[in-house]
Amino acid sequence: MKLTRFLPLLDWLPRYSRAVLARDLLAAVIVTVMLIPQSLAYAMLAGLPPQVGLYASMLPLLLYAIFGSSRTLSVGPVAVASLMTAAALGKLFEPGSGDYIAGAVLLAVMSGLMLVLMGVFRLGFLANFLSHPVISGFITASGLVIAASQLRHLLGVNGGGHNLLELVRGLYGQLGQSHWPTVIIGAGALVFLLAARRYLQPLLVRLGLSTSTAAMLTKTAPILAVVVTTLVTWWLRLDQTGVAVVGDIPGGLPALVMPSLDITLWQQLFMSALLISVVGFVESVSVGQTLAAKRRQRIDPDQELVGLGAANLGAGFSGGMPVTGGFSRSVVNFDAGAETPAAGAFTAVGIALATLLLTPAIAMLPVATLAATIIVAVSSLIDFRAVVRTWRYSRADFLAMLATIVLTLVYSVEAGILAGVGLSLGLFLYRTSRPHSAVLGRVPGTEHFRNVRRHQVETRPELVMLRVDESLYFANARFLEDCVLDLVSSRPELKHLVLVCPAVNLIDASALESLEVINERLENSGVRLHLSEVKGPVMDRLQGTSFLERLTGQIYLTNFQAWQALGQDSRMSTEQALASDIGKNA
Amino acid sequence: MKLTRFLPLLDWLPRYSRAVLARDLLAAVIVTVMLIPQSLAYAMLAGLPPQVGLYASMLPLLLYAIFGSSRTLSVGPVAVASLMTAAALGKLFEPGSGDYIAGAVLLAVMSGLMLVLMGVFRLGFLANFLSHPVISGFITASGLVIAASQLRHLLGVNGGGHNLLELVRGLYGQLGQSHWPTVIIGAGALVFLLAARRYLQPLLVRLGLSTSTAAMLTKTAPILAVVVTTLVTWWLRLDQTGVAVVGDIPGGLPALVMPSLDITLWQQLFMSALLISVVGFVESVSVGQTLAAKRRQRIDPDQELVGLGAANLGAGFSGGMPVTGGFSRSVVNFDAGAETPAAGAFTAVGIALATLLLTPAIAMLPVATLAATIIVAVSSLIDFRAVVRTWRYSRADFLAMLATIVLTLVYSVEAGILAGVGLSLGLFLYRTSRPHSAVLGRVPGTEHFRNVRRHQVETRPELVMLRVDESLYFANARFLEDCVLDLVSSRPELKHLVLVCPAVNLIDASALESLEVINERLENSGVRLHLSEVKGPVMDRLQGTSFLERLTGQIYLTNFQAWQALGQDSRMSTEQALASDIGKNA
Repeated sequence: MKLTRFLPLLDWLPRYSRAVLARDLLAAVIVTVMLIPQSLAYAMLAGLPPQVGLYASMLPLLLYAIFGSSRTLSVGPVAVASLMTAAALGKLFEPGSGDYIAGAVLLAVMSGLMLVLMGVFRLGFLANFLSHPVISGFITASGLVIAASQLRHLLGVNGGGHNLLELVRGLYGQLGQSHWPTVIIGAGALVFLLAARRYLQPLLVRLGLSTSTAAMLTKTAPILAVVVTTLVTWWLRLDQTGVAVVGDIPGGLPALVMPSLDITLWQQLFMSALLISVVGFVESVSVGQTLAAKRRQRIDPDQELVGLGAANLGAGFSGGMPVTGGFSRSVVNFDAGAETPAAGAFTAVGIALATLLLTPAIAMLPVATLAATIIVAVSSLIDFRAVVRTWRYSRADFLAMLATIVLTLVYSVEAGILAGVGLSLGLFLYRTSRPHSAVLGRVPGTEHFRNVRRHQVETRPELVMLRVDESLYFANARFLEDCVLDLVSSRPELKHLVLVCPAVNLIDASALESLEVINERLENSGVRLHLSEVKGPVMDRLQGTSFLERLTGQIYLTNFQAWQALGQDSRMSTEQALASDIGKNA
Repeated sequence: MKLTRFLPLLDWLPRYSRAVLARDLLAAVIVTVMLIPQSLAYAMLAGLPPQVGLYASMLPLLLYAIFGSSRTLSVGPVAVASLMTAAALGKLFEPGSGDYIAGAVLLAVMSGLMLVLMGVFRLGFLANFLSHPVISGFITASGLVIAASQLRHLLGVNGGGHNLLELVRGLYGQLGQSHWPTVIIGAGALVFLLAARRYLQPLLVRLGLSTSTAAMLTKTAPILAVVVTTLVTWWLRLDQTGVAVVGDIPGGLPALVMPSLDITLWQQLFMSALLISVVGFVESVSVGQTLAAKRRQRIDPDQELVGLGAANLGAGFSGGMPVTGGFSRSVVNFDAGAETPAAGAFTAVGIALATLLLTPAIAMLPVATLAATIIVAVSSLIDFRAVVRTWRYSRADFLAMLATIVLTLVYSVEAGILAGVGLSLGLFLYRTSRPHSAVLGRVPGTEHFRNVRRHQVETRPELVMLRVDESLYFANARFLEDCVLDLVSSRPELKHLVLVCPAVNLIDASALESLEVINERLENSGVRLHLSEVKGPVMDRLQGTSFLERLTGQIYLTNFQAWQALGQDSRMSTEQALASDIGKNA
């Protein structure tokens, strides 16, 4: 039972059948065909030699098959993590240099360690602090930056930068020097890929294929673009006219690589590795959960951390780069009928075969084709409608989203995501520090009480029922004092104040002190303080405190009980209260 | 009206009378007598020459009298701010050096600017993020560090350090080298001051003085210790035997000092200045509010920021050090009958006269006497009972308090307070990310619904009423999904799930997406989702969202209405629901 949880492999492997094998194998073939150009392209996006992308698509898939909890997630290099890798390493080293490649290895190893530790200590909940609008804004902005970063490859010019401003400035002066053969190949690939996405699927459906098969085949269009442009380049010797090609890459499988133990480098990459881990985890879990729900399966977020961590450790030690679960690739895997993580393991074998056999052919692959592949892939990440939807629903969420987008575009991906997280937490805290409150009245003829400003309700001059819509804690303790004392000073006829607490989920030590102050000040003004609808856990905590001992009024189970008890003969009960106060002082 | 708010002076000055003048003057004399040794002592604690303390007790008091909103707060150098000043500057410069003194000036100016800006932009609420337990723990720990830092002056040995570990380690090897004449003076002053605090007040009361007069006179005991030990030192020429004395200090009033414009220094001191400002403001406001409440006055926290900011700017430009409202001094001012801030202005004049006339006499004042004064003053800051009380009431608050105390003691004051603030916010967020939830049942015969685990209530198998005790936002959105889906999977007979929302004060964009997912999953399982007791502001927000359009169930004003509507003939309503679902799909 327990072992199955930590090794999900033990769940499906014993029941593995020939029928499942056939489906997993088919899915693996299709995903392999899709993954080859993606691996090369995302390695290029990360500023790494192309074989690094292939290395990151072997061992990680095997390890995820053993430790991952999703049946159909396909891990490997992905666009956003590659951009974040480039941003992290570009500050420190020359892209493509030995130090840069060693940095990518270390990033993968550190991410792997962090993810495994988070899984072991069940810290997956930390990912919850990335709100949906921040993630969605971040991915949209990253998609824009990635697309902009590929334009120079499409145009065959120099350039660089890690944000939109730098990239646009870099391109601006160079447009005149565009290399036309490159532009033709790149634009051709781009148009072909866009057209395939738009028209190929309907066409295939019309030819009699099922919708999902058509969608799946459409996703393999990039390999066709790769094959055709490579053949054209080779045939016309376009590389000699200046078309940039991938060039010779070392054949063979990756060797074991030991990560750097330079403590300074670990410190420099710490924050980047953490962000890559958390963002990758969030993306991966949301893809995994969506697919699992379709087949009524569940994934275990903490085990998912371990699976992704193992995959990243595998990527690092085999000379790869940070990996995570990719959206489009996992959907293809799922649609192609993959039933178990064995499909991922078979994909790893497919990539290994490709690395052994195809590297000579890849030498003539134009870089512009890879750039076109990336641009088309990331265009599906860009979601402006989510921005509009967020703006309409919540200004606070929109603000956090906007900060993420703007900083990612004009400054850096790390600053963008940190600003988004910081701002969304800050706005939440700010909001809870100034809670909404309402004076309640009785909905006539019922036992229900609602806001006097929104409903037609009964009230009484000597009784105020004040509902504070927030837990009472240090950030709003003083606000509560001000709110109550202002209310009391504006109602001279007041004798009873009932604090209605259904929304109070917590009273911390600071708020308890404020309640004591309120109780004392109200007593001095001849007003008794009561509580109603206090929740069980809050009441448990209040038992035995000096606040409860000194409370001038009562605690009522319901507002209606308070209304009845304080309403029947409020004049008499007030006189009794005064009498009892005199008794206390005597 | 508006001007009075920004210049509280305009409120009391026009009504100033001779009777008020007499009371203010008396208070000023007493506070002056108390403030002279305090100014010298806190300057020493801050690592500054004694005259800096006097400079910080003139112009700041005048400016606070004009801009401050408290009638009786007495500003000037205080123990905790002096310790924080020493901690901030000790990292950068040699205590007492020209750079060190310039650093203190800059800290005062920066604090002043920050406070004024926070006041102008009405950011006083930021101080609410310092919880009571963190402040209380910080002050207790600071008191211990301050007392430990003064032991070396009592013993006449060398030593130093900014936390308890360093201070104790510094003293440890030197105990054998204690300078006996210094020890006798220091211990004598200490015993006298402690005895005065304990026995003088009862004695004076027995001699016929009122309690408050006796308490007030008791607070002036330090000046007696100063006079006696100075005379003894002068008479016996103890300074020549090695008793450390204050020494010659420049007479005369302070000149205008321009703060450093070195941008690096501003950056280095930024965080320290911010912490000194915020901690000083929180202390000051709590003293001010306590005293104001006694006379049914109110203070305006935002104006208080401006008042304290002006005082600190005054301190900086007159060569002083950071100042704030002191607790014991303000209580003396209040008890002595001060009625308006004019008492503070008269105190400034008193300190100016002392600076002009008494500086030659101060030269022979033993440093050990000042150390004894400080130790006795800070011993009242140390409050272990608050630690015990917090432990009993709330483990989360205690944890934040403990982190503050431990880090302040063993590392640094800044680390202590930052850890406390960070931890208290983190624990609040953690708690809200895993909210308490309860399944409700009907309290028989009423319209009230409570937790089935705590109360004897009615339930129905096909209906679950789930109350989530927290606002729904990004940090708990996924938790909500898990919570609801687990509940549904354990109850096959379930047909209706009512999400009871009186504690939901906010549904953010992330939680809205989770609600959409929940609605869809429940629909797939044949369960309808309803909401009840949704608050007005939350309901306003939900209007027009696709969640509300797709919601399979209803929104009920009260739980009782949901109970009635879904209970009467639940079988039929479920069949209707299924029929309508079939209708949708058809």
